[in-house]
Amino acid sequence: MDPFGILYTDLYQLTMGQVYFRLGLHEKEALFEAFYRKNPDYGAHQAGYTVFAGLDPLLSWMEEVRFEEEELAALGALKSRSGKPLFDEDYLRYLKAMGGFSGLRVRALPEGRVAHPQVPLLSVEGPLLQAQLLETALLNRINYETLIATKASRVREAAGEALVLEFGLRRAPAKGGESATRASLIGGADRTSAVSLSHLLGLPPSGTHAHSLVQAFLALGYTEEDAFRAFAEVFPDDTVLLLDTVDTLRSGLPHAIKVFEELRRKGHRPVGVRIDSGDLAYLAIQVARELDKAGFPEALIVLSGDLDELVIWQIKSQILEEAPRYGVEPEALLKRLVYGVGTKMVVSWGAPALGGVYKLVAIREDGRWAPAIKISDSLEKVLNPGHKKVFRVYDHRGLATADLLTTHEEEPDPRKPLTLRHPTDATKHRTLQPGSFALEPLLEEVFRGKRLFPPLPLEVLKERRRKDVERLDPGVRRLVNPHLYHVSLSERLFALKEALIQRLEGGHAGIP
Amino acid sequence: MDPFGILYTDLYQLTMGQVYFRLGLHEKEALFEAFYRKNPDYGAHQAGYTVFAGLDPLLSWMEEVRFEEEELAALGALKSRSGKPLFDEDYLRYLKAMGGFSGLRVRALPEGRVAHPQVPLLSVEGPLLQAQLLETALLNRINYETLIATKASRVREAAGEALVLEFGLRRAPAKGGESATRASLIGGADRTSAVSLSHLLGLPPSGTHAHSLVQAFLALGYTEEDAFRAFAEVFPDDTVLLLDTVDTLRSGLPHAIKVFEELRRKGHRPVGVRIDSGDLAYLAIQVARELDKAGFPEALIVLSGDLDELVIWQIKSQILEEAPRYGVEPEALLKRLVYGVGTKMVVSWGAPALGGVYKLVAIREDGRWAPAIKISDSLEKVLNPGHKKVFRVYDHRGLATADLLTTHEEEPDPRKPLTLRHPTDATKHRTLQPGSFALEPLLEEVFRGKRLFPPLPLEVLKERRRKDVERLDPGVRRLVNPHLYHVSLSERLFALKEALIQRLEGGHAGIP
Repeated sequence: MDPFGILYTDLYQLTMGQVYFRLGLHEKEALFEAFYRKNPDYGAHQAGYTVFAGLDPLLSWMEEVRFEEEELAALGALKSRSGKPLFDEDYLRYLKAMGGFSGLRVRALPEGRVAHPQVPLLSVEGPLLQAQLLETALLNRINYETLIATKASRVREAAGEALVLEFGLRRAPAKGGESATRASLIGGADRTSAVSLSHLLGLPPSGTHAHSLVQAFLALGYTEEDAFRAFAEVFPDDTVLLLDTVDTLRSGLPHAIKVFEELRRKGHRPVGVRIDSGDLAYLAIQVARELDKAGFPEALIVLSGDLDELVIWQIKSQILEEAPRYGVEPEALLKRLVYGVGTKMVVSWGAPALGGVYKLVAIREDGRWAPAIKISDSLEKVLNPGHKKVFRVYDHRGLATADLLTTHEEEPDPRKPLTLRHPTDATKHRTLQPGSFALEPLLEEVFRGKRLFPPLPLEVLKERRRKDVERLDPGVRRLVNPHLYHVSLSERLFALKEALIQRLEGGHAGIP
Repeated sequence: MDPFGILYTDLYQLTMGQVYFRLGLHEKEALFEAFYRKNPDYGAHQAGYTVFAGLDPLLSWMEEVRFEEEELAALGALKSRSGKPLFDEDYLRYLKAMGGFSGLRVRALPEGRVAHPQVPLLSVEGPLLQAQLLETALLNRINYETLIATKASRVREAAGEALVLEFGLRRAPAKGGESATRASLIGGADRTSAVSLSHLLGLPPSGTHAHSLVQAFLALGYTEEDAFRAFAEVFPDDTVLLLDTVDTLRSGLPHAIKVFEELRRKGHRPVGVRIDSGDLAYLAIQVARELDKAGFPEALIVLSGDLDELVIWQIKSQILEEAPRYGVEPEALLKRLVYGVGTKMVVSWGAPALGGVYKLVAIREDGRWAPAIKISDSLEKVLNPGHKKVFRVYDHRGLATADLLTTHEEEPDPRKPLTLRHPTDATKHRTLQPGSFALEPLLEEVFRGKRLFPPLPLEVLKERRRKDVERLDPGVRRLVNPHLYHVSLSERLFALKEALIQRLEGGHAGIP
């Protein structure tokens, strides 16, 4: 059985399915929404937004998977505690006939776009059983890729215009490395070292050499310089030399410069050096100074070793402060830096999971959508109920100022005043005046029994992220203590939510 | 191209390979070791050991993958900055003829066993090019599964004899969920909710129902009680009811008890309830009291919602303290608890990456192994060089007291005094007297061109972990501030390392 087939799911999706099937509810039209409640908090710093990723692989998966004999045999073999089969034969036959997710319609935030807490990323409409069954795989894909794209976007922001390379496959979560690489690239990394993944994404991979190359030469009685020279002879136009196997400044750097000079004499241009340990900012300054002196002012300096957005920020700050002391022009140095980012990006160090959820918000009954709600001990966790629309509100500067959830029936009109309500606090609201704002519907239909468009080039997703991040207020973009971006409800949606809470708390849920 | 084929690797493995190929070094016998430097540190608490996992899938991968036309075409299309092909045709032809990893011999710590920092988990011997090329995939698999098995072992320790269910697929890292589930089960979880993964591991999956079942009923005008009754009618012998969709104590619990009474009248035994939010210890006490009163003292109480080892510990402590106040026998309550653990286990919350590395330690030259070393700015990061043996030292109580690394030539003899050396501090050593200790060789040969044994049943790996953890000193086992387990060098290995460091620092590496 394919581990990643239609049974890449939790058992309870299938047991609930049998309950719906027995009661004849399995084909009732249901509406689920996926969203997350809080931006990642890395401890010392926090995200002010996320970057939505994982959609395209999810849609391909939905189109491909189905219940085949193998899956049904596995389910048929499961036993109840009574010893009898857990699943009934007619239910399994129904699953077989149903196939996969051909009854579902999905609207989604376009992949690569900036997202915010509480705002639906996907809305899934269709037969209750199919929509329920999708939950686990949807969250599995969306949670992780969004988490990593978000971290990568922060790394991108910290790195400015510099090249960012994703080096994390060795620390990535096994086959999850596939998604780590993809999401890192959507989020802002320029290249990856992963060969098969890069190929499948249509990019050339990136890489240098490891310490082991130098070690091997040393163990065989040669020198670090010999190792560098060997690499340069085999890759004369692609030479990036790793300086820190023995000692960055006393050994690696002079050896690299010697080999670079040989390359130059032969008419080649050395690409650069890499430093993987030590005080990276200090070493970068010293290395830049010596490379400048030797006439290699354009040689790149690749920095790696447990980098993340804060470390990059720190390195840049230190260079701006210290470089002039050593006669190195800081801006010129920053322009030649390349960041190799691995572990901390592909595991989202500090916040290694996104708590995305998938909740039933409405069921169609007698032709209308009956809103569903879930009360919780914390007000923030109470669902925004019913079939909804989602808009992004832009201010007169063209910057995104809020995301707005409305009921499905509403048509907010920018020519009229628009009141934005805090999702839970009735005292917090503001009204935007006509002409001062613009509205953008956020969700688009992406699946109706099958994908509605083929996979998009990575470049499109990267560009969406770039544009959306530029349209954020700088306070929301910043790496530490970001401003809170407003996610608001319309008057009507707020009123609906209040009414449902009161109805449920008032005993209509059957509280004795 | 299969994303997880032989090119699930970093580009630099292949560029280094071409350097070795051009110099005729590609078939030199090399020895690499994989190890990690520090146990996971979760911030508020730390691991005193790890549980080694990921070996079996790695060995299967090594046996299966090879360079096929598709891979060679992808590599052949890569361009140098000069515009010429990056890889030479004769090198690609060599890779094709080489196939995969048929020249390698791997010795490894048996999967599931307890591991410690600096101690080789795997030692890989064979042609330099093949051994180098293995690095990325080996670390990708071993790092993540070991990390998760370690977290699961801690959850297991906290949970005592209680059942632990792995519920994390929705927050697991995309396809890395496959490894998350496997490693969680090796580490001590009893069951998983993941259907396909459970099936492939030969276990029945586990599960209850979601809030959405109750929500759907409410939205359709029915009650929570109706939802519970429907579930119980479809699964009369497997009924676990989720109490917290509306209100755990005021709504969920009385409705569940009513449905349980109906089940009992029909001759069925309700399995239990689940609580997924709120003050879990307090709620468990109240729920237990009411279930007892209603005559269901054996109904299980499944707790879930962001659990990890510390939360479980806290819940148990609170129950021991508070339960008597409500007339509930705490020990009896602990015995009926089941822990559903998800997110925090499958992402190793607090320490989401293990920094495992793969280092060249020796090259065979003129029939003998020439040790390789890498100097580093921190003494702890200096490699333990050369071809080595690994032993676990047990004391007179049968508890593991140290792991010992020796040179390959040594045969430590328990009938003679044995001196254990701190790996970096020359002043720290201790000598064990004959008769006071026993030695166990830790690495076994697992691959010689192909796997040497078929995949082992999960039960074997689980049992290895259980036994090894029992043979740890309680101080090393504890969840917070564990004792430091000793990893020592033999006199000879210590002397070799010192000599190599001096040689390298003395300029023999070619430092100008």
